[in-house]
Amino acid sequence: MSDKGAVVIDLKFERREVDSALTDAFKGRQVLHASDKSADLSGARYALLWKPDSDLFRRAPNLEVLFSGGAGVDSILTLPDLPEIPIVRFVDHTLTTRMSEWIVLQCLSHLRQVPAYLRQQRVRQWREQPQPQASDVTVGVMGLGVLGQDAAQKLKIMGFDVIGWSRSSKAIEGIETYDADGLDAFLGRTDILVGLLPLTPDTRGLFNASLFGKLRKKGALGGPVFINAGRGGSQVEPDLVAALNSDVLSGASLDVFEKEPLEVQSPLWGMEHVLITPHAASASDVKALFRNAEEQMDRHEAGEPLLHVVDRKSGY
Amino acid sequence: MSDKGAVVIDLKFERREVDSALTDAFKGRQVLHASDKSADLSGARYALLWKPDSDLFRRAPNLEVLFSGGAGVDSILTLPDLPEIPIVRFVDHTLTTRMSEWIVLQCLSHLRQVPAYLRQQRVRQWREQPQPQASDVTVGVMGLGVLGQDAAQKLKIMGFDVIGWSRSSKAIEGIETYDADGLDAFLGRTDILVGLLPLTPDTRGLFNASLFGKLRKKGALGGPVFINAGRGGSQVEPDLVAALNSDVLSGASLDVFEKEPLEVQSPLWGMEHVLITPHAASASDVKALFRNAEEQMDRHEAGEPLLHVVDRKSGY
Ligand SMILES: NC(=O)c1ccc[n+]([C@@H]2O[C@H](COP(=O)([O-])OP(=O)(O)OC[C@H]3O[C@@H](n4cnc5c(N)ncnc54)[C@H](OP(=O)(O)O)[C@@H]3O)[C@@H](O)[C@H]2O)c1
Ligand SMILES: NC(=O)c1ccc[n+]([C@@H]2O[C@H](COP(=O)([O-])OP(=O)(O)OC[C@H]3O[C@@H](n4cnc5c(N)ncnc54)[C@H](OP(=O)(O)O)[C@@H]3O)[C@@H](O)[C@H]2O)c1
Repeated sequence: MSDKGAVVIDLKFERREVDSALTDAFKGRQVLHASDKSADLSGARYALLWKPDSDLFRRAPNLEVLFSGGAGVDSILTLPDLPEIPIVRFVDHTLTTRMSEWIVLQCLSHLRQVPAYLRQQRVRQWREQPQPQASDVTVGVMGLGVLGQDAAQKLKIMGFDVIGWSRSSKAIEGIETYDADGLDAFLGRTDILVGLLPLTPDTRGLFNASLFGKLRKKGALGGPVFINAGRGGSQVEPDLVAALNSDVLSGASLDVFEKEPLEVQSPLWGMEHVLITPHAASASDVKALFRNAEEQMDRHEAGEPLLHVVDRKSGY
Repeated sequence: MSDKGAVVIDLKFERREVDSALTDAFKGRQVLHASDKSADLSGARYALLWKPDSDLFRRAPNLEVLFSGGAGVDSILTLPDLPEIPIVRFVDHTLTTRMSEWIVLQCLSHLRQVPAYLRQQRVRQWREQPQPQASDVTVGVMGLGVLGQDAAQKLKIMGFDVIGWSRSSKAIEGIETYDADGLDAFLGRTDILVGLLPLTPDTRGLFNASLFGKLRKKGALGGPVFINAGRGGSQVEPDLVAALNSDVLSGASLDVFEKEPLEVQSPLWGMEHVLITPHAASASDVKALFRNAEEQMDRHEAGEPLLHVVDRKSGY
């Protein structure tokens, strides 16, 4: 056996994708599978996990580091029997690029009247819609972490006026930013609200009727748009539906929901000015996830500090 | 009367938009309207035109410069009685930004499986689609002029692999380019073809069955996509429909058509993997058009050369 620590995998991802990524990964390390119920996991030093089995931590009591299969760790922090060891979240340019694709796609879809043109296409109607300039539309990005900063910069390059909001204040070139205290001022300038926040006790239920009511009312798009790719627990869906029905919001793009899969009965599915994707804004690339974890295991064994360790107190 | 030359306006744009833009434009110049049939246009030195009246050049025989209301001049170059004077086409950052919005929106829509997710939303289905990385998808931009170069650079920033093709060879950082002779090699690498070409005798009917058959077949998207925002005359619609029906093309985004408005009977309207907009990819901003024309009139009267003058021989 090599002296590189053993790894246990408990990722509820597409099995085929995990297997294919494993062929090249964790050279020199023993790889165990939680799905193998007869396997002895007591020697595992590392776990890669996403929606793990409830007995994982009991079966693997000697873990030193947990690697999250995704960027968000809200579902890991609330696991029963979670050991008091470092949790590393997934940060990678493939994940960031993918999220910015989705965010830019959704902002452009609302700017360029995609719902209206889709409706016209269905009835074979040729009619130009009024077209504001991107520079007259302010996108307000909530959450200026790895994902929010990249999205903000790309939206700026596409021509939007971009502002941002985060817990601690930030300096990002070309983008005016607000910290926690500046929320109302930030909302009052925002035409398209982009949510890229982690789910924590502080952000749960943040996107509610009161918040929607503070967005800029008479902007170039005719009414504010809400886009969320952070976590569904941050949005209050009855408030969202009411805001969309009463023109407090003129449209939305949603990748995350209070309960996933989104229930068949949800009125959101049937709204023409709402674009829905099934928590697919930025799926982790499993090869990249393994590459990242492997590098960090090597760092850890060389006595170097781990990167992207979750702060349990703030919850992200 | 001032010694600044008089301007005649014959723009078949939205009347309200023209009137509103005129309130601030052409200070110190007489502004005449071709729509006023009793007006004496013989003193006009400049014309701003888009789909002009057939008697415009007869009524205004002393024009020195024609200003096109759009970036494309194919419809102007084929006007009867067109005088042998410089034609200035419309080039402005507002037009370029708008076109790049549309191009990036369409490329991301195909990359991120928008047609499939729209279908799923209609039937309230929660299902993740396979998701290639943008870097595994090559966008081939045909036409590397003012619009093509900006679109290519923004697509690159979004993460796509980008290549380009134009009549004369170009050097653009980070983007491999081909000149006229390299067409087949260019097409063989292209997963998403973006048309940003002017309509000229050389480009008429260029997007036909033979060209579609040369695109990369087994790329990351499963089949090539065709996007056109240049001119409809460059595409052969029966070939396009056949290619879409036989999976030679896996999707399309079309802003321009052989005949506009697109006929109600066109099968393109009803195709789920085709996204249609009504020649609205980049409408001219009338205020910017007037600001540009005004600057050029001042240049002309100061003895400086005009910018963006059309080369009648090449047709753009
Ligand atoms: N839909 C998907 O497919 C998908 C994919 C990946 C990730 N996500 C979600 O996206 C989230 C963000 O990812 P990331 O990598 O950008 O995270 P990150 O780097 O940790 O950034 C989080 C940002 O949110 C801010 N924030 C956190 N709590 C806040 C609060 N109470 N008030 C104000 N700002 C607060 C942070 O402020 P500070 O800068 O002051 O700390 C930081 O700017 C993840 O947590 C995950 O839930 C979704
Ligand atoms: N749908 C809309 O709303 C909309 C709006 C604006 C414009 N447009 C269309 O977009 C077109 C492009 O605009 P632009 O401002 O980018 O024009 P541009 O600056 O004149 O650029 C034209 C590009 O096409 C290339 N080209 C022309 N003929 C060619 C040929 N036979 N073979 C290969 N390449 C050829 C040129 O090559 P060289 O560089 O070698 O000259 C140049 O790179 C306009 O002509 C117009 O038709 C559409």
